[in-house]
Amino acid sequence: MQGKLIVFEGVEGSGKTTQIQRSRHWLLERMNQKPSNVVVTREPGGTTLGSRLRQLLLQGHQHPIQDRAELLIFAADRAQHVEEVINPTLLAGGIILCDRFTDSTIAYQGYGRGLSLELIENICQVATDGRTSDLTLWLDVDVEVGLARAKARGTADRMEQADLAFHRRVQQGFTALAAAHSHRIVRVDASRSEAEVQEQIQMILTQKFAQWYPDNSFSPD
Amino acid sequence: MQGKLIVFEGVEGSGKTTQIQRSRHWLLERMNQKPSNVVVTREPGGTTLGSRLRQLLLQGHQHPIQDRAELLIFAADRAQHVEEVINPTLLAGGIILCDRFTDSTIAYQGYGRGLSLELIENICQVATDGRTSDLTLWLDVDVEVGLARAKARGTADRMEQADLAFHRRVQQGFTALAAAHSHRIVRVDASRSEAEVQEQIQMILTQKFAQWYPDNSFSPD
Repeated sequence: MQGKLIVFEGVEGSGKTTQIQRSRHWLLERMNQKPSNVVVTREPGGTTLGSRLRQLLLQGHQHPIQDRAELLIFAADRAQHVEEVINPTLLAGGIILCDRFTDSTIAYQGYGRGLSLELIENICQVATDGRTSDLTLWLDVDVEVGLARAKARGTADRMEQADLAFHRRVQQGFTALAAAHSHRIVRVDASRSEAEVQEQIQMILTQKFAQWYPDNSFSPD
Repeated sequence: MQGKLIVFEGVEGSGKTTQIQRSRHWLLERMNQKPSNVVVTREPGGTTLGSRLRQLLLQGHQHPIQDRAELLIFAADRAQHVEEVINPTLLAGGIILCDRFTDSTIAYQGYGRGLSLELIENICQVATDGRTSDLTLWLDVDVEVGLARAKARGTADRMEQADLAFHRRVQQGFTALAAAHSHRIVRVDASRSEAEVQEQIQMILTQKFAQWYPDNSFSPD
């Protein structure tokens, strides 16, 4: 059976990394998933090539990056990731928990940088070869709260260093995407505690798994 | 007055680098160009970001690169190059001698790797934002001769290591492009000696300069 691509999206400091790790743990412990069947990955940087591209993107202070070049590097990272990790995992029936995917590109490069949305959708189509997420969990948190959390955890990367107005536009992007693709994107209130956010995610996943695998064992013990 | 983008194209070992250097020298010595007005550059690798991307592309043995990812990295390099080097130089009236541009992408990624030409033209359009060369000099040499020359000069990079059939398809690509865009692409017989190849190039450039700058000083002494 074809696997599922579950994407975690949100602004900096929305708690994606933590929630992905907790969700993986829950899938193994309570949803009877084998460790080899749950793949945690991220964009950019989900492949060897991608980790090199990620360095270029996040350490941008060494060399200014033009907006269209940035978009195309993210797209290159994604094309490699889809071919090397996502498609083979889904073909093998795996569950993928992915930190960022196409919606981040639309929110950051489109709403944030101001590149044309049509251009970005065109490039995303090339990068993914048509692959979309089966479920996108949008961890919605106030931009100020998120940035403060990101700052608290250490040195800010090139994306985190962008100004507040930029991050506000990114947030508007996620809001617009969630409204336009309500069949695929589910909003999670990420302003609450880690445990409460995880509880919301488990509820959504339980419902989705029942829908995806109606006849099977993927239900909480 | 707007400058001119002159691109040198051809398979490995066609003599592009040598001919670009000789053409620059000739432009300075005989065509009365100021050194600051003649810019020699290349793709990939014409910018700081591009030189990092070039490393990734040519040292591919460390990590396999998927075809679509490769195309998008070349495109990212080009987008940065167009914004950072090509457009500002042309705006300042400069003459650019560029080692490879969009035709290489069509020949290598399209004819060579087999990606759809429509897809590649779409991505090239995004990368260049519509910029095309004013003149493309296609240094046409037998694939076997070119590869032998490339081999003689040292270690083969990832592109040069591809098999002969790949390079033959690339050559077919250049042939088809030259036929389709005869207003822009001029064939140079690059099987001849360095001096004879340079002579052909100087004839073509003399003619083009007379056409581009009918009222001026850009003529041989």
